[in-house]
Amino acid sequence: MKAAIIGGGVIGGGWAARFLLNGWDVAVFDPDPEAERKISEVLMNARRALPGLYDTALPPEGRLTYHSDLAQSVAGADWVQESVPERLELKHKVLADLMQYAPDEAIIGSSTSGFKPSELNEKGARAIVAHPFNPVYLLPLIELVGDADTCARAADILSGIGMFPLKVRKEIDAHIADRFLEAVWREALWLVKDGIANTEEIDEAIRMGFGLRWAQMGLFETYRVAGGEAGMKHFMAQFGPCLSWPWTKLMDVPEFTDELVDLIADQSDAQSGHMSIRELERLRDDNLVSILRALKARGPGSGAGRVVRDHEADLWHAMTDTTPLRTVARDVPIDWTDYNGHMNEGRYGQVFSDAADRVMAHVGADADYIGSGLSFFTAETNIKYLDECHAGEAVYVDSTVTLGEGKKLRLWHEMRRKADDSLLATCDQFLLHVDLTTRKSCPPRADVEARVETLATLHARGTT
Amino acid sequence: MKAAIIGGGVIGGGWAARFLLNGWDVAVFDPDPEAERKISEVLMNARRALPGLYDTALPPEGRLTYHSDLAQSVAGADWVQESVPERLELKHKVLADLMQYAPDEAIIGSSTSGFKPSELNEKGARAIVAHPFNPVYLLPLIELVGDADTCARAADILSGIGMFPLKVRKEIDAHIADRFLEAVWREALWLVKDGIANTEEIDEAIRMGFGLRWAQMGLFETYRVAGGEAGMKHFMAQFGPCLSWPWTKLMDVPEFTDELVDLIADQSDAQSGHMSIRELERLRDDNLVSILRALKARGPGSGAGRVVRDHEADLWHAMTDTTPLRTVARDVPIDWTDYNGHMNEGRYGQVFSDAADRVMAHVGADADYIGSGLSFFTAETNIKYLDECHAGEAVYVDSTVTLGEGKKLRLWHEMRRKADDSLLATCDQFLLHVDLTTRKSCPPRADVEARVETLATLHARGTT
Repeated sequence: MKAAIIGGGVIGGGWAARFLLNGWDVAVFDPDPEAERKISEVLMNARRALPGLYDTALPPEGRLTYHSDLAQSVAGADWVQESVPERLELKHKVLADLMQYAPDEAIIGSSTSGFKPSELNEKGARAIVAHPFNPVYLLPLIELVGDADTCARAADILSGIGMFPLKVRKEIDAHIADRFLEAVWREALWLVKDGIANTEEIDEAIRMGFGLRWAQMGLFETYRVAGGEAGMKHFMAQFGPCLSWPWTKLMDVPEFTDELVDLIADQSDAQSGHMSIRELERLRDDNLVSILRALKARGPGSGAGRVVRDHEADLWHAMTDTTPLRTVARDVPIDWTDYNGHMNEGRYGQVFSDAADRVMAHVGADADYIGSGLSFFTAETNIKYLDECHAGEAVYVDSTVTLGEGKKLRLWHEMRRKADDSLLATCDQFLLHVDLTTRKSCPPRADVEARVETLATLHARGTT
Repeated sequence: MKAAIIGGGVIGGGWAARFLLNGWDVAVFDPDPEAERKISEVLMNARRALPGLYDTALPPEGRLTYHSDLAQSVAGADWVQESVPERLELKHKVLADLMQYAPDEAIIGSSTSGFKPSELNEKGARAIVAHPFNPVYLLPLIELVGDADTCARAADILSGIGMFPLKVRKEIDAHIADRFLEAVWREALWLVKDGIANTEEIDEAIRMGFGLRWAQMGLFETYRVAGGEAGMKHFMAQFGPCLSWPWTKLMDVPEFTDELVDLIADQSDAQSGHMSIRELERLRDDNLVSILRALKARGPGSGAGRVVRDHEADLWHAMTDTTPLRTVARDVPIDWTDYNGHMNEGRYGQVFSDAADRVMAHVGADADYIGSGLSFFTAETNIKYLDECHAGEAVYVDSTVTLGEGKKLRLWHEMRRKADDSLLATCDQFLLHVDLTTRKSCPPRADVEARVETLATLHARGTT
């Protein structure tokens, strides 16, 4: 699959990274001589952050090319994404070119924050709005607005690269999310202008409180919970009257003077000026990856965690009976390192635990089997730590069944660095099959026992 | 220390839990015969969630009492928190009673979302606004408004129970955070009323995108990053003009009709009605604990994670030379369990890794020592898994030094359940002292080596 990225700023670069790291070929068109440098920087951030979201490897990266010729960049593209500056006449011009050169079956998406599809297409284009959020390579949300069939096709593609397409049913200026951002932005400008709070205090008021709620439940579900057993009507009865109180200045718009711009820029410098933008981006990405990984582990009901989970499930491949079994292939995520700067010893144990889970699934002791009340529990591990590894390094585990008799299962795992196949750690792991009701050991189901014995016999013969 | 909680709803109950679980005695005054039941339910949630934020045990819970007599409830209180319904004349009546019965030196805080201190105190009271966010036992933010000296004393106390006090410098209706909540609420009502989006779509638009950004950076730092190297002024120049565009309907206020209330209540039922409020609360708390733990692990620059980190540092106690050393005392957090419903085997390894860290710190191989370029690395572990443990269970680890000779350090750890002292797992751990520059083994600094040898000799003698 091929994506053409028209306009290579922070947003275009984010789109390029999202497609590329999910295995798409990407062609970038941008007349700016700095475009390649700018996109490289976004890509460096994305390569550092995105693979760490998942507990399995992403597909091999696609091929990245830069073009000064628009027709060449869009040739054979399945997706064309326009991310040029937010001026309608410029968007019209670019879209007219795309109508001429893009394949008829290609989806043409626009990253516009504010324009409606009817405005984008008033000169005869067939674009939909596909509005992403920065950083595009990490945040799942994409607002889709426009032709229903095209949006449905677009949604399938976007889900396939780990995003969350939200179809906006009626077109409206600024779609949905940016209406909230604009409302909050206006209120924030008033608070700063009136000297109630500075930029840092406003950020703390958000991230120490409701920002944490919104990251996982949004607005209405949070309030539903706050309403308690009396329900959403009760909550609304309680807070409805505030609508007539002077709790916001939003009936009015602050004048956007040079003084106000300077005031905010100065406060922002005082707050964050000790860090470069690159450092802030990495801080943001590390925080986002950590939050998304934490939510992923929580299962359904975890908002964006569910999207990461579903995409990860798509990334798994079924194993075949090889000697050894390749049970783990992944990057070391940022949240696995400790104060020594390397992967914490507890996480070696987790990698080997994951490897054992893969062996179990392979012999039929999968989620359904565990749901039926049977599982394998680890009784003993002996781990030798031979070398360090660091966040972002690709590693893999090869596993063999060294004993498979009745309720006993013994595995030998070797964890290696992908770059040079050097041995990082070994684990001798002894498991017992258990009845989850009695929590006592018992023989596996006959088919699982047979699969274990087959593997044990195969692996006893040595490398194939 | 004693806190008196005046009004025992969701907010009062949250305050009670926050104080109680941080070791304060708590006296609740609420004439509602249901108050004890309601507070018990909040406390049950808090006991389930709050201890799991920290990688060390909270202090023993204080004593909880219920009172039908206000004077009795506030006697000897260091903090009195008013959380009665949001009606000014009711607040005036309660505050007048508190002026009569509360100790002169007690801080009197009001949980009001909207009233200013000058309004609360217009009949002669001396309250400050101490505005919390639901769930009070997990979210760090407290907005403090009012008398500067009282707010400074209040801030010290609140930091001591793990909160983040934000001093609001000028009083204003709805303080800071609720102004944003009100702005977003108004915009959301319009979007639902106009049929642009339903409650679920709005929640997804928030939690799949900017909610994740705000949870860790807030508004301005996020935009500073988005502005890139060109800086905050550039960002503002780009988005300033939107202020004159129709990107929000906030110049106008939707009429709060029965139809609108029904529309929203119905949509909310369709979205979340398959879960009870209790289930939603636990989902929210599990998500919040997971996010806060993830941010805590990221260090400075992680917003609310920093607050949890700082509070945790205060909770640690220095060890003395006992046999064995009590190296770990903690609850099993929600993010440590796996599909089998018990603590994942990798986390046993992490507990023993933490135990080794405590031994290291105790012998002088602490953060400064590691900063100087020396550390101990684990070379081998042998773990026996003897029993399961589950989220919320209190566990501890006793550790002895079984070998301490030059660069070699060997530890024996026993992890037990606090409730019955039953043995959960053992770990035989072998560590080597390393030079962090060469990554090769080397002898420890003389004082550290001497401390290790002292412990090895002491522990060889057996239990004292």
